[in-house]
Amino acid sequence: MRQPSSTSEPGGSLSEVLARGRVRALTGDVAWLTAMVEVEIALARSAAKLGLIPLDHATAIERAGRALVLDPDAIGQASAATGTPVVPLVDRIRAAVGDPAAASVHRGATSQDIVDTATMLIADRAIDTIVDDLRAASDAAAGLAREHRTTPIAGRTLLQHAVPTTFGLKAAGWMVGLDRAIRGLADARVRQLAVQLGGAAGTLAPFEGQGRRMVIELAGELGLPAPVVPWHTERSRIGELAGVLGVAGGTVMKPARDIVLLAQTEVAEVAEGAPGRGGSSTLPQKHNPIAAVSAIASAQRVPGLVATLLASMAHEHERAAGYWHAEWLPMRDLLVAVGSAAAWLRDCLEHLEIRPAAMERNLAADGGLALSERVVDALTPRLGRSTAVDLVTAAASDAAAGKPFAAALVERDGGRSGLDRPGFEALLDPAGYLGEAPQLVDEALRAHADERRP
Amino acid sequence: MRQPSSTSEPGGSLSEVLARGRVRALTGDVAWLTAMVEVEIALARSAAKLGLIPLDHATAIERAGRALVLDPDAIGQASAATGTPVVPLVDRIRAAVGDPAAASVHRGATSQDIVDTATMLIADRAIDTIVDDLRAASDAAAGLAREHRTTPIAGRTLLQHAVPTTFGLKAAGWMVGLDRAIRGLADARVRQLAVQLGGAAGTLAPFEGQGRRMVIELAGELGLPAPVVPWHTERSRIGELAGVLGVAGGTVMKPARDIVLLAQTEVAEVAEGAPGRGGSSTLPQKHNPIAAVSAIASAQRVPGLVATLLASMAHEHERAAGYWHAEWLPMRDLLVAVGSAAAWLRDCLEHLEIRPAAMERNLAADGGLALSERVVDALTPRLGRSTAVDLVTAAASDAAAGKPFAAALVERDGGRSGLDRPGFEALLDPAGYLGEAPQLVDEALRAHADERRP
Amino acid sequence: MRQPSSTSEPGGSLSEVLARGRVRALTGDVAWLTAMVEVEIALARSAAKLGLIPLDHATAIERAGRALVLDPDAIGQASAATGTPVVPLVDRIRAAVGDPAAASVHRGATSQDIVDTATMLIADRAIDTIVDDLRAASDAAAGLAREHRTTPIAGRTLLQHAVPTTFGLKAAGWMVGLDRAIRGLADARVRQLAVQLGGAAGTLAPFEGQGRRMVIELAGELGLPAPVVPWHTERSRIGELAGVLGVAGGTVMKPARDIVLLAQTEVAEVAEGAPGRGGSSTLPQKHNPIAAVSAIASAQRVPGLVATLLASMAHEHERAAGYWHAEWLPMRDLLVAVGSAAAWLRDCLEHLEIRPAAMERNLAADGGLALSERVVDALTPRLGRSTAVDLVTAAASDAAAGKPFAAALVERDGGRSGLDRPGFEALLDPAGYLGEAPQLVDEALRAHADERRP
Amino acid sequence: MRQPSSTSEPGGSLSEVLARGRVRALTGDVAWLTAMVEVEIALARSAAKLGLIPLDHATAIERAGRALVLDPDAIGQASAATGTPVVPLVDRIRAAVGDPAAASVHRGATSQDIVDTATMLIADRAIDTIVDDLRAASDAAAGLAREHRTTPIAGRTLLQHAVPTTFGLKAAGWMVGLDRAIRGLADARVRQLAVQLGGAAGTLAPFEGQGRRMVIELAGELGLPAPVVPWHTERSRIGELAGVLGVAGGTVMKPARDIVLLAQTEVAEVAEGAPGRGGSSTLPQKHNPIAAVSAIASAQRVPGLVATLLASMAHEHERAAGYWHAEWLPMRDLLVAVGSAAAWLRDCLEHLEIRPAAMERNLAADGGLALSERVVDALTPRLGRSTAVDLVTAAASDAAAGKPFAAALVERDGGRSGLDRPGFEALLDPAGYLGEAPQLVDEALRAHADERRP
Repeated sequence: MRQPSSTSEPGGSLSEVLARGRVRALTGDVAWLTAMVEVEIALARSAAKLGLIPLDHATAIERAGRALVLDPDAIGQASAATGTPVVPLVDRIRAAVGDPAAASVHRGATSQDIVDTATMLIADRAIDTIVDDLRAASDAAAGLAREHRTTPIAGRTLLQHAVPTTFGLKAAGWMVGLDRAIRGLADARVRQLAVQLGGAAGTLAPFEGQGRRMVIELAGELGLPAPVVPWHTERSRIGELAGVLGVAGGTVMKPARDIVLLAQTEVAEVAEGAPGRGGSSTLPQKHNPIAAVSAIASAQRVPGLVATLLASMAHEHERAAGYWHAEWLPMRDLLVAVGSAAAWLRDCLEHLEIRPAAMERNLAADGGLALSERVVDALTPRLGRSTAVDLVTAAASDAAAGKPFAAALVERDGGRSGLDRPGFEALLDPAGYLGEAPQLVDEALRAHADERRP
Repeated sequence: MRQPSSTSEPGGSLSEVLARGRVRALTGDVAWLTAMVEVEIALARSAAKLGLIPLDHATAIERAGRALVLDPDAIGQASAATGTPVVPLVDRIRAAVGDPAAASVHRGATSQDIVDTATMLIADRAIDTIVDDLRAASDAAAGLAREHRTTPIAGRTLLQHAVPTTFGLKAAGWMVGLDRAIRGLADARVRQLAVQLGGAAGTLAPFEGQGRRMVIELAGELGLPAPVVPWHTERSRIGELAGVLGVAGGTVMKPARDIVLLAQTEVAEVAEGAPGRGGSSTLPQKHNPIAAVSAIASAQRVPGLVATLLASMAHEHERAAGYWHAEWLPMRDLLVAVGSAAAWLRDCLEHLEIRPAAMERNLAADGGLALSERVVDALTPRLGRSTAVDLVTAAASDAAAGKPFAAALVERDGGRSGLDRPGFEALLDPAGYLGEAPQLVDEALRAHADERRP
Repeated sequence: MRQPSSTSEPGGSLSEVLARGRVRALTGDVAWLTAMVEVEIALARSAAKLGLIPLDHATAIERAGRALVLDPDAIGQASAATGTPVVPLVDRIRAAVGDPAAASVHRGATSQDIVDTATMLIADRAIDTIVDDLRAASDAAAGLAREHRTTPIAGRTLLQHAVPTTFGLKAAGWMVGLDRAIRGLADARVRQLAVQLGGAAGTLAPFEGQGRRMVIELAGELGLPAPVVPWHTERSRIGELAGVLGVAGGTVMKPARDIVLLAQTEVAEVAEGAPGRGGSSTLPQKHNPIAAVSAIASAQRVPGLVATLLASMAHEHERAAGYWHAEWLPMRDLLVAVGSAAAWLRDCLEHLEIRPAAMERNLAADGGLALSERVVDALTPRLGRSTAVDLVTAAASDAAAGKPFAAALVERDGGRSGLDRPGFEALLDPAGYLGEAPQLVDEALRAHADERRP
Repeated sequence: MRQPSSTSEPGGSLSEVLARGRVRALTGDVAWLTAMVEVEIALARSAAKLGLIPLDHATAIERAGRALVLDPDAIGQASAATGTPVVPLVDRIRAAVGDPAAASVHRGATSQDIVDTATMLIADRAIDTIVDDLRAASDAAAGLAREHRTTPIAGRTLLQHAVPTTFGLKAAGWMVGLDRAIRGLADARVRQLAVQLGGAAGTLAPFEGQGRRMVIELAGELGLPAPVVPWHTERSRIGELAGVLGVAGGTVMKPARDIVLLAQTEVAEVAEGAPGRGGSSTLPQKHNPIAAVSAIASAQRVPGLVATLLASMAHEHERAAGYWHAEWLPMRDLLVAVGSAAAWLRDCLEHLEIRPAAMERNLAADGGLALSERVVDALTPRLGRSTAVDLVTAAASDAAAGKPFAAALVERDGGRSGLDRPGFEALLDPAGYLGEAPQLVDEALRAHADERRP
């Protein structure tokens, strides 16, 4: 049991279950440090543009930065002295640049400027990826909604058959949730992302009066908005990102949980269809809905991470005594968790096998009990509501005891209503009591198409 | 110790500390049940408009509903059988209406339609109140920012003096955070609130093909938007409301924590000024910052409540087996907690006493150490950066050992830099190293004014 | 819609769903204030015993305290000035006692001494009740385990049939979890509860050198342990209570979720049996597992509340600037939530109807696929493991396509194994592959009996 | 910006700030997989002892297992198909062992048996380390308590001076909290850790009637207790571990937060003393309390992680559809976070510099206002309580306006009390109003010594 590498950490062996997709690489340690180097380069370019450092220093910093080999573990070791990886990272850039340009590295910035701006770059890229996977998942749900807009399925409340609905409407509900989460993420990208530059206490003092111009230059270099004022201890951006990511996690978990329930051995109305998945080493008959299960497992971490980020918003004075550092891992974990959930759900929905025959069989299994509401509504004008309810309730009891529901209704009615057995049986046909499910699917699909329009 | 009332519940004796302001009454039990009655009335009026029930039934339902005396405890008792208060509430309305209009009560709706729509009405009103208090708090912060845009104060990082800033910039940071939270809440009101109407499983089946028109009528009656499809098990609306409320809580806690720290006996740069507050029964000298403390205490509940709501988003199939019920108390608690925090912060900021002399004294107490960065920057062109850093670091050590910092700098410099003692002393004047703090205040105030424009 | 009472608050109309059982009354506002009066009385009696106040003062305080009519709302209003209800409460006691004994009221104590000790009294009583309900639930589970120690049921992993187990073993698992939670709560009562007395900053200064004796007297009066030192800002007691309550919530949710799943229309292996429950106003056929659903809904609030209490443990210096106040509502909510969950689960398990025929039918429905593991193990010595796995996997595919599993096995085997059709069919009998389930039930029941022994 | 290694993941560059100490290595990916291999080896040895597999198979498995080179990333890739790393890990062991012993690998076990038991091994080792660091921290606090049992310091409530206490009592409070957390962790090791073995659905079916003996053998092999029944879906063990780890996090955060506050520039009563720490790249005067800050940052993640684990306790039926997988990362993160917090606090307390002169100066700075309670108590027998309170309150106001408190008291008293200026000044000496602080320190130290006794 020798260890092949001292740098291996929690996550590798679980990557494909709990950190699936591209977000893990985009938010990993190397990506994070690389983004910090990008910020240092952009800072130097901006300072050179404004004449705060010589242009050839900026060029040297850019060249050295791009060539830098990052060693996260060594940087981690060296971080203990100051509590941030920026100090050892800047040391490495300075060493690579050499004198005299070394003095122009990190000019005027504080560690938090670098970390916060790098975090924004990373969040931007990660959210882009998450949105991609959520869009694909939503499109897959839209395809299911379209195809099954009139496919009857039991509507289940508290996991009991209630009245019929259509599988298309169920899928449309998933799609709507995903589209709303996508919108939330897209808006957050526009409104919450921004560069951070303020210097030691947010006054931009080291920039010789050109601080606000520096912020604008830096924003331009990095393709991020410039904030009105530095946000080093005003953490609503972090909190709002956490909130929309939290919602995204929840909107992924909803279809995943429905699918796990629909895939139960006794229900069997859907099955996961991706090849080579869901087997078991000991149980040859097993076909586990492993994509949905993994989506749930990934998303389950989300609410606790959001709570940690919200609970860390009260940064003291001009730099927090712990709450800033406390954001780093939860923000990355949150992006990874939501990204993994989204990637799994996409996989799940893009390969989902739908079994209308099972839906029909399950709906019919209780002899039409799920149409009770409809029978009551049909009898009410003939018998009055309270008599109608009593009659149907009694017939439902008979059905629970084994008598076919239609027969029980006929017998309990005793002809009072004027309905005969074929009349009752017609009422018990689920296909005739789908309400406006197909039309709701159509409207949801129209809204989906509008969301996709550029 | 007799009990005056069997209806009294947790909350009363803590109302002014942890449930301050108007949200408690707006979200309380009577308000919640009242909102449900409003929904039932609006449902009847909508159904009558579309010819689904007779117009005089709707009139009778409206009259009976408005006259109904609600007894939360009795309704609570009766809720156990079905798990929702809607069934006993509808029973009461039906009894009050009498036959034949009783049959038209709750026509086509399911319990969740009533509870969800009532929750939206209540959230709408509560958020309106929260936004009011946050606006007043933000305006108070704006006043402080304007008045103190150039008032020097120690910029503190990790609770250590770093470089000077202005109290106005600190207050502007509070204001910006509050304004962002207000924007988040205002947007959420527009985008997340909506009526819910779907019937037993969301298909609108009982409405005889007029279900989607019913949704639009109901929305019009209640002044809430109509959703594209029923959202009974698509809970992104609840999740997003939770998220923005979570951010609001965090943006309240930031200034509250700063104020508690600034009010410390040893710092004493601010004091709470509301008359009759902050005393102690046993310690006559005490002047506790009780508004800020209570804001913190109120907001501290927020992240856990948000997490509970996010963790409850995966509603099974067409009605959740527990997660829907699980939203009720946390959503109300969340509105109350944020409302209380906002009300306390408003009170705190509207009465805050600012002590510029103490700010000046604290900044000067260490002989100008907080200007070290500036001294380094001034020496760097003369001595090179590394010599400058070493010189200032050594002088800072001398100062820690008791020598005045200016004297230590002169001595350590030994004339190398060409700076004399007055030269060093000028560098140590905080008022000369405020960076662009005043200009940042100006920009923040402009953005604040823009936010307030209708 | 007139309001009968201005004091009514969130909770009443939901009491029987989300705050069921006796804990709500035991932790309510009146109970909380009453407990504070009890502490003030015990404090006076202790001080009199040690000669710190006259004995007749203590007698007067006790008499006045017991007669006091508590008005939570008025006390709540008056709490705003100091941030705690203790100051107005002490004012009321002093007014009721009159001079000169008024000066002996609250002698030497600080507000936190009263609130913390009262919280411990209330936690003690609430936990006693919670343990009662958990014990009854566990005993009901034990009864089910005993009765169904050999009743076959599908063992389900990832909600797919895996191998058979017995319903008794499933119920025994519920029982074991509940017993462990009960043990945790019982231990916590012994180890975490304690009086708190320290005076303004925990030094016992006002007690003229008799402070530690006061602590012991007070503990004796109230029947709570005395701590080694005051714990006003050492909150491990609160944290550990939160932890064990959190576990109790989780151990309730496990059987509740299993029951909701077993009660599904398609599974129907259990039904809730409490009379008059689970109906629906619009769906006569409905029989919702409302006790299990309400247990889930109640327990769902728990993790967020635990997190809030744990996040509030870092009390600053000698009294927290917000985190102490922040404990009050979450601790009460946590007791109520766990108490409600326990009361519902007890109700659910004491009335649960078990349907062995449905269990048998569901197990048989797939023709014995859940016995695949057994077939592999039986074939392995005859054919080698890898051939055995391939054979059974292929037959399982045939079964999924409609062929009876036994027939598919015979055909795929082609006589190689020496097993004939009756041989295969014997392997597919679930009753023959229950492993040591019955013996595990026996051992669990023995441990359960041991736990109940005094 | 080339990447040196594709296996590097989040964590490395932050290791020394947020994952300090030995827990990270003990819980990392290689450690986790290695522990799984240990379990497979112990399983084989147990099965051989009971004659379920040939002895030479067990020997071959042990040899191959110990020599196995683990590649977490490749295993992670291969995990996607089944959702656990066990299947690819077992494949690797089988390949290394070769036929015929390969058939004896993983004999009778299910993936969860391996993962759960490995998790227990890892928790055992990690908690051992955490307890080590907490003990050292507590011992350091004990040393401070002993040395400073009578060193006066302002007792601060709501961050305002209240009455004097001693720094020793403050440190004793830290120690007591740490000792209670240590006890909780130690008890949890005894009561919560256990092997898990049950086979596919917990019935021990594959073990030919020797399943319960297998559990006992396996427990003996691994040095862990045997449970009464399999706990694959009874997660109170995980929940209770989470709870005590949560408390440990909170008891670390308390002293860390106190130290950050005591180290503030304006307070300066303590400083962190570890050499080479707390500097800043741009601010030469900075001496940040980076150990305390990092302890806070590490512990801040804890409540959210605990909530996630508690929220994942309701495992469905015989294997959860997501909640089991959802435990993996949070449990490891929780161990790492608490371990990091403990390591930092140990470092902080072992090197803490105490500044009694600053404590004295801060206490004296307000002229004795923190002795107000004592003055009231001294005047009460002479003037009556209400006159005494009024007099001292008025004098406190005078003091706030600049007059020395003693002089104000003399003047406001006007000789009524019979006390002269020296009399008042004596009352204002903090050293005379420490209450029983020194004796409480002694008792706490006695209890600490008892805890350390074997």
